[in-house]
Amino acid sequence: MTDKKLITPRKLQGFWELMPNEEMVFEDMLDKLKKCFKDNCFVPLDTPNVEYSEILLAKSGGDLDKEIYRFTKGNNDICLRYDLTVPLARFVSMNLNTLDFPFKRFQIGKVYRGERPQKGRFREFYQCDADIISENLPLTYDAECIKLYENCFKALNLEVVVEISNRKILEGFFKSLKLEEKIVELMIIVDKVDKLPKKEIIAMFEENGLKKKDISDLFKILNSKGDIAEIKKQIGEITQDSTFQEGVTELEVISSRLEAMCMKKENFTFNLSIVRGHNYYTGTVFEAFLKDKRNLGAIGGGGRYNNLCGYFIDKNMQGVGMSIGITRLFDILKSENLVKFPSSFIDLAIISFDENTLNYALTLMTKLRAEGVKAEVLNEEKSFKSKMKEANKKEIPFVAICGEDEMKLNKYTIKNMTTGEQKTCSFEELLKLIGKIED
Amino acid sequence: MTDKKLITPRKLQGFWELMPNEEMVFEDMLDKLKKCFKDNCFVPLDTPNVEYSEILLAKSGGDLDKEIYRFTKGNNDICLRYDLTVPLARFVSMNLNTLDFPFKRFQIGKVYRGERPQKGRFREFYQCDADIISENLPLTYDAECIKLYENCFKALNLEVVVEISNRKILEGFFKSLKLEEKIVELMIIVDKVDKLPKKEIIAMFEENGLKKKDISDLFKILNSKGDIAEIKKQIGEITQDSTFQEGVTELEVISSRLEAMCMKKENFTFNLSIVRGHNYYTGTVFEAFLKDKRNLGAIGGGGRYNNLCGYFIDKNMQGVGMSIGITRLFDILKSENLVKFPSSFIDLAIISFDENTLNYALTLMTKLRAEGVKAEVLNEEKSFKSKMKEANKKEIPFVAICGEDEMKLNKYTIKNMTTGEQKTCSFEELLKLIGKIED
Repeated sequence: MTDKKLITPRKLQGFWELMPNEEMVFEDMLDKLKKCFKDNCFVPLDTPNVEYSEILLAKSGGDLDKEIYRFTKGNNDICLRYDLTVPLARFVSMNLNTLDFPFKRFQIGKVYRGERPQKGRFREFYQCDADIISENLPLTYDAECIKLYENCFKALNLEVVVEISNRKILEGFFKSLKLEEKIVELMIIVDKVDKLPKKEIIAMFEENGLKKKDISDLFKILNSKGDIAEIKKQIGEITQDSTFQEGVTELEVISSRLEAMCMKKENFTFNLSIVRGHNYYTGTVFEAFLKDKRNLGAIGGGGRYNNLCGYFIDKNMQGVGMSIGITRLFDILKSENLVKFPSSFIDLAIISFDENTLNYALTLMTKLRAEGVKAEVLNEEKSFKSKMKEANKKEIPFVAICGEDEMKLNKYTIKNMTTGEQKTCSFEELLKLIGKIED
Repeated sequence: MTDKKLITPRKLQGFWELMPNEEMVFEDMLDKLKKCFKDNCFVPLDTPNVEYSEILLAKSGGDLDKEIYRFTKGNNDICLRYDLTVPLARFVSMNLNTLDFPFKRFQIGKVYRGERPQKGRFREFYQCDADIISENLPLTYDAECIKLYENCFKALNLEVVVEISNRKILEGFFKSLKLEEKIVELMIIVDKVDKLPKKEIIAMFEENGLKKKDISDLFKILNSKGDIAEIKKQIGEITQDSTFQEGVTELEVISSRLEAMCMKKENFTFNLSIVRGHNYYTGTVFEAFLKDKRNLGAIGGGGRYNNLCGYFIDKNMQGVGMSIGITRLFDILKSENLVKFPSSFIDLAIISFDENTLNYALTLMTKLRAEGVKAEVLNEEKSFKSKMKEANKKEIPFVAICGEDEMKLNKYTIKNMTTGEQKTCSFEELLKLIGKIED
């Protein structure tokens, strides 16, 4: 063995990997989210991590994007998926005749982006999406996706505020200025309003044809925040453009639906500066923030889109979806000290001395595990003293000693590692002592 | 849109993808297994699906294996992982100083093999492994991995039989014949005993230097089945070789430990023809079968191996692991009709008629979901009749009708879609009617 050249063990940079105590907490979060999606009548989907490049790059006409992991295997030109939305479109298009619509699916899975790794950016990370797809999708489903944040964050023991807007409002406003051809560029500038100095932003709007009065109106829109009555008061008079008014009406419907769905008033608000980066959103858009921690940035977002399957089939399927940035959320909870990681995976360690008492200890371990106690026999060939030291180091709260004397009496000596108290007792008494059953 | 050339939606052949009703059952299986691993003090691990080729191909000296998905991204030569064991070795080697040992980890994840897809063989599929790693690992841990099958299959509501052997027995036997240099080839032939005609097998053994008497002894070993006493009676006298005797002694210890761990006698047996294909096993080996369905083949297997991390670090880490072929198991349960797939994802459909009653319906939906009832408002713009038809087609067991009359009374009209019975009632009565709370 020593002659052999060793290979330095290393992991690809930017690929998500947690230590076991962190992974336990992360998986617990995923489990709670999955339960929440299921409780809200979403069904699970698990698509391959690899797809034909033709499918994944349909949007860009097959162009190779630097961010994409693309390669060939045999005759196949394939990619690692970079999101869960294109695979959803492919899946819905392939199974149009067998799926029930509205199709409410959630998916939690790894996606791949070859970006330069940096704090909070990963090359392999988890996405967590819930979408509702149908040919004709009333606004109620937009409201359902928003309400879902409240349920999901409650399941995680966190509080959320969802900020809601509707792209039709800004689109209608730009249309009223006869700037419909510049909407894509203008929306990109709007998306930067919070990130760049106001002076720069104003210059960019001016370059794109907005006059002083228009910019002042635009900021009146972008600064509109509050409940639906306040929003209407703030922007109602700006333009009579039909798309603009449709956007406002849609917000009103969403507000009414959220109220009917008992969403807490403090958990949602309207904020007309929300546009979402992606151009495929066509109506409702929203972003989710941790309550009182807006400065940490959005933890998720989503909205309404039309023609999900347009690249694959000749049928217009509408969709609305919400997404939770769980990798990012986990990172935030960790750096803000909002999660507690387990210091020990074991509730109770068992110490035995020889062949006979080892078997006695294993039977105790089996009986305890059947009662939901994470019991583990310290089983390597070590002295009693070093086993006690091991239990201490691993921060195991209880130790059960199984010696000859205990075995003869069909009892166990329990030591509370925090208080140092020690007692010889029966199995039933043991369960009581470690708090597994009531006194 | 109609001018655009559409791309045929298709999925890569041999890549695992289930329909939602199947996926629900599959995820439920995974959840039960995860819980079982955790209850037995295993911790979760989630390594990247992609690793440096140098790491994954360490064993083969970096040779490109046709089965491997290998590609380059930037300057990195990378592969999709083909199992979960090499990533475990890499992880343990990297974190030797921070992990607690024995390190008991489970991992359920996708792996990739570029084989020709065929029935029961996938290019992307799930592996489900539990391993225990330490510098010095007593046989108790081998027994724990075997016992784990009983717990896992019980969690899945299935019964298992684990067949156990120890490679030292055959190795010692071949050593006693001075054939130690041919052990690898001979083990490969042994692994084929069940698959090829006996005549062919005998010829192969003869070619490798076994005499008639040796072959007769060998078959005495390979045909040894039963409990530990029976095994000892059947093969005790064959050779006094020390490795052979060590193998028998280890089986005795395993038997004693399994008894101490309360493993049911009918759930394990010894079968000395079990060798496992992989050459890295060095002692205990086992395979798991569905009880009374041995003909369906092994659903999992595992065993003891030495020097897990030998390619990466200069420290000998021992391991023992068990694996469940969950993709295969799911396929078998499906084809043998041993699983029931849900026909509906919804417990109760709600029908409303206009803006007012829709909001009334949404409140009911929210209240029902909070009680754990999968309630869904049929929300697309359709007539009452077509909504009832939809509920029927989706096999939803109950429908709640929320009309103006019901709203005025703060009541709901419930229809049992199986019996056709209909009743107007309060929320509490509704919960009783659908069996959510006791009468």
